[in-house]
Amino acid sequence: MTGELGTEDSVVLYDTTLRDGMQGFGMQLSVEQKVRVAASLDGLGVHYVEAGWPGANPRDTAVFERLREAPLPRARLAAFGATCRPGAKADSDPVLAATLVAATPVVTLVGKASLWQVETVLRTTGEENLRMVHDSVAHAVAQGREVVFDAEHFFDGHVQDPGYSIAAVEAAVSGGASWVVLCDTNGGRLVDEVASAVAATRARIGDRLGIHCHNDAGLAVAASLAAVASGARMVQGTINGTGERCGNADLLVIAANLQLKCGLAVLAPGALRELVAVSRLFDSMVNRTPEPQRPYLGPAAFLHKAGLHAQGVARDPRAYQHIDPAQVGNQTRTVVSDQSGRSNVATKLRDLGLDDLDPQARGAIVERLKQLEGAGWAFEDADASFELLVARALPGDAAPFALQESLVVAHDQDSLQTADAAHQVDASVKVRVGPTLVHTAATGNGPVEALDGALRRALTSHFPVLAGVQLVDYRVRVIDGDRGTGATVRVSIDSSDGDRTWTTVGCSPNILHASALALVDSYEWVTRHAAESNCLSSTA
Amino acid sequence: MTGELGTEDSVVLYDTTLRDGMQGFGMQLSVEQKVRVAASLDGLGVHYVEAGWPGANPRDTAVFERLREAPLPRARLAAFGATCRPGAKADSDPVLAATLVAATPVVTLVGKASLWQVETVLRTTGEENLRMVHDSVAHAVAQGREVVFDAEHFFDGHVQDPGYSIAAVEAAVSGGASWVVLCDTNGGRLVDEVASAVAATRARIGDRLGIHCHNDAGLAVAASLAAVASGARMVQGTINGTGERCGNADLLVIAANLQLKCGLAVLAPGALRELVAVSRLFDSMVNRTPEPQRPYLGPAAFLHKAGLHAQGVARDPRAYQHIDPAQVGNQTRTVVSDQSGRSNVATKLRDLGLDDLDPQARGAIVERLKQLEGAGWAFEDADASFELLVARALPGDAAPFALQESLVVAHDQDSLQTADAAHQVDASVKVRVGPTLVHTAATGNGPVEALDGALRRALTSHFPVLAGVQLVDYRVRVIDGDRGTGATVRVSIDSSDGDRTWTTVGCSPNILHASALALVDSYEWVTRHAAESNCLSSTA
Repeated sequence: MTGELGTEDSVVLYDTTLRDGMQGFGMQLSVEQKVRVAASLDGLGVHYVEAGWPGANPRDTAVFERLREAPLPRARLAAFGATCRPGAKADSDPVLAATLVAATPVVTLVGKASLWQVETVLRTTGEENLRMVHDSVAHAVAQGREVVFDAEHFFDGHVQDPGYSIAAVEAAVSGGASWVVLCDTNGGRLVDEVASAVAATRARIGDRLGIHCHNDAGLAVAASLAAVASGARMVQGTINGTGERCGNADLLVIAANLQLKCGLAVLAPGALRELVAVSRLFDSMVNRTPEPQRPYLGPAAFLHKAGLHAQGVARDPRAYQHIDPAQVGNQTRTVVSDQSGRSNVATKLRDLGLDDLDPQARGAIVERLKQLEGAGWAFEDADASFELLVARALPGDAAPFALQESLVVAHDQDSLQTADAAHQVDASVKVRVGPTLVHTAATGNGPVEALDGALRRALTSHFPVLAGVQLVDYRVRVIDGDRGTGATVRVSIDSSDGDRTWTTVGCSPNILHASALALVDSYEWVTRHAAESNCLSSTA
Repeated sequence: MTGELGTEDSVVLYDTTLRDGMQGFGMQLSVEQKVRVAASLDGLGVHYVEAGWPGANPRDTAVFERLREAPLPRARLAAFGATCRPGAKADSDPVLAATLVAATPVVTLVGKASLWQVETVLRTTGEENLRMVHDSVAHAVAQGREVVFDAEHFFDGHVQDPGYSIAAVEAAVSGGASWVVLCDTNGGRLVDEVASAVAATRARIGDRLGIHCHNDAGLAVAASLAAVASGARMVQGTINGTGERCGNADLLVIAANLQLKCGLAVLAPGALRELVAVSRLFDSMVNRTPEPQRPYLGPAAFLHKAGLHAQGVARDPRAYQHIDPAQVGNQTRTVVSDQSGRSNVATKLRDLGLDDLDPQARGAIVERLKQLEGAGWAFEDADASFELLVARALPGDAAPFALQESLVVAHDQDSLQTADAAHQVDASVKVRVGPTLVHTAATGNGPVEALDGALRRALTSHFPVLAGVQLVDYRVRVIDGDRGTGATVRVSIDSSDGDRTWTTVGCSPNILHASALALVDSYEWVTRHAAESNCLSSTA
């Protein structure tokens, strides 16, 4: 495909994770998280970021407010909306007005481009729909906005009645739309059908043409690439392909393909190697385990299990890898078994500057790691807990404190009532700090908050650094879900002191115990680091 | 694509789940399970089932023994192996001999079809590799076997040195191979590259040509379909696309596309509607949650969340569905969500047979739903809790029981020790059943298991149906993760009585409270349904 598209950078990426992506099963993000997603897309150099549908959802309205106060440095911000309703005037339609109120430079309006849909679902005439499309686009253009027209059901319509579908996109063009985006809304068209319809439309309206695919037939990435090869110059998609039903086209996978396979530099310089980080950040925000097999970006995307393949990769990585995984921020992994081997540990120790650890200590660490991993622990995203595991295995190591006892009492008197009422819990802890045994207690809205409060009361006077520590994320993953309420759970906690963020993990069939382990690791990690920097300053 | 391929049934499916698929991360099946997978593929009408590599793996040898004792009724059974090694004679190579010992009608041999791979990884000459391919195929053919030649790295080789790659497949043909299967082993080729190389090869060796794709660029399904359009007549793939790295092409998705979109009846009559069952059976055997978004087959593949989409589907299912989900054994689902309006609630009420609910009750349900959703509840995967929400809003409804008080006491004496030690928790509950207040207690490995135990002790003597209820999955989702340990959590529980599975949800800043709400809903749902069927039987 290289070379067919003219100059580099001629294809723009348009992300709709925060709108279409949120239609995916189980997707929910807070206002804060949505702003973080937008920032991560901006960092990649995604050209357009659609942040929601301000007319439909009060949370989306708040996101646009936040992004108006602190605009994205690079990306153009788009608000989504629909054309006015049948019989309504574009300049007085309340839903369209709500979209414009968000005051974004870009407004994306969806309208129908299939006569069957217009007549069956919208229940109006083809002619009235053309008026709605034209007038709505023209109204937004008159407000000084760049208008993207999403031509819903274009490809289905083009099979049934190509003349009408083309007329619909021409109505948007005549209304002043900057981009016309052809949508395979139901996701069922074959790649060749998409390619030929894009080519036919391009012949009519020129190259301000985009593509928006869904993955219902497993072809969304391929169809998006085929559309680009046929002249589409904007690609819409979502992070990790989240979206209604089978999802939208996976924008990050498309970006990797365009850049690495088609010679199109669609991302900001250097951003390609951030793709894995953006994909994992999103998974973590929506509390999903990263899909191991995700093309380019999954944790297993460059993982070799077979003896023959692992041997081949040892001779030359290209033997069984289509790209150098570092290009997208991923890495080669070789698994001997389901457990991690010595080579994994060696890599991690090198990261900690402990290359020269003696073999006995190294063996003890590997043993401990195997034991913990067998019980459900995972250190992949918990570097602070791994660092503590290593520190505790070194000869002569002394912990700054030790949690010796904890008691949690939860007394609920109206469990069948809803969460509106408070269901407070008491916790007490006994913590040894040097020669002292500190006994403290606290109350919280849940058992973990109560434990956290008691621990802080016990420790903060001894370790003032803890006063500045905040727990910024708390995640629970059930490991053996099919064991019901007897399942093992893994708790991960992200903590921050404003400058640094660190992650700790705890694992147990008892969620209170797992949480306590992760909390203690977080406070121990920052306490040890504070002690180190004190030493440094006193010898300076 | 319809019509380009000549007669129906001219494309055959070849499944390699039990060999290439087992290279996927975390994949492991017992002998018994492998035999069941083979039987389920046979039931679909998959033409060739590759059951393993008898030379490489003792477990695979046992699978072939089982399938020799009880042969598959329809499918042709294939044993996998490799060409003889450099310098070895085909008739005395031990690995090749082990493949033949399995005594299958079909033998599939992999050999290299890329000169770079031959020289760099195999470390022999191009000429010697051609001899190995020819002699190995000829040796298996001489034993009376149908030979399939898997041309490893064909497409990469074809880009670098097309003459050599073609020579390799011609060596297999001249050795007597019945099929030559072109492999994109590293999974990185674009769709057009695959299509044109298949067409070029077909011009040289005719149409006993197959395709074997991997999904490293997210294009495996599309490339397989493009290969068929270019003349390939065998498609290799795996159930749910399991396999090394990013996986193999998903054979069930390809079959659905070929049959529903390309007019090729590749499956046995009536088998199309078994696709979901086969996909889910495999996930259950490898202990994976079904991928919600899997094209055609995922639990969310026909799930509608947006108000506009749900409304469209209510008017005509084709509005937002590319096929009738029943064709593949799937179904339409509508979920209630914060993006949804009254129309979704109306659809759900229709599903519950409550179309004619009076407006006041309907309004009360919508209000209650909004209130709960505002507090973090989500009913999209919790139909049983939604059903209870509706039942509780109906005039004159009486709950079968009510949890009135709960007490959880967790006393940990060595929290810093690992999860190896038990950290047991005590719980007691007071439950009102009719005029009686039942007070029970139990111990568990964690607070939720303890609560569950106490609730069952309180309820099972009054509601014997509960004795047969198992909790099959327990999920925890943190909603506002950025509030640290004060975050709201949503607990979902899947329960089963062997016949039915139902899902309930509870939401609270206190995980114990959220869990209790979900547990109570599960038991109340099955208790109410048991009472209904008792009523029915007593009036019968």
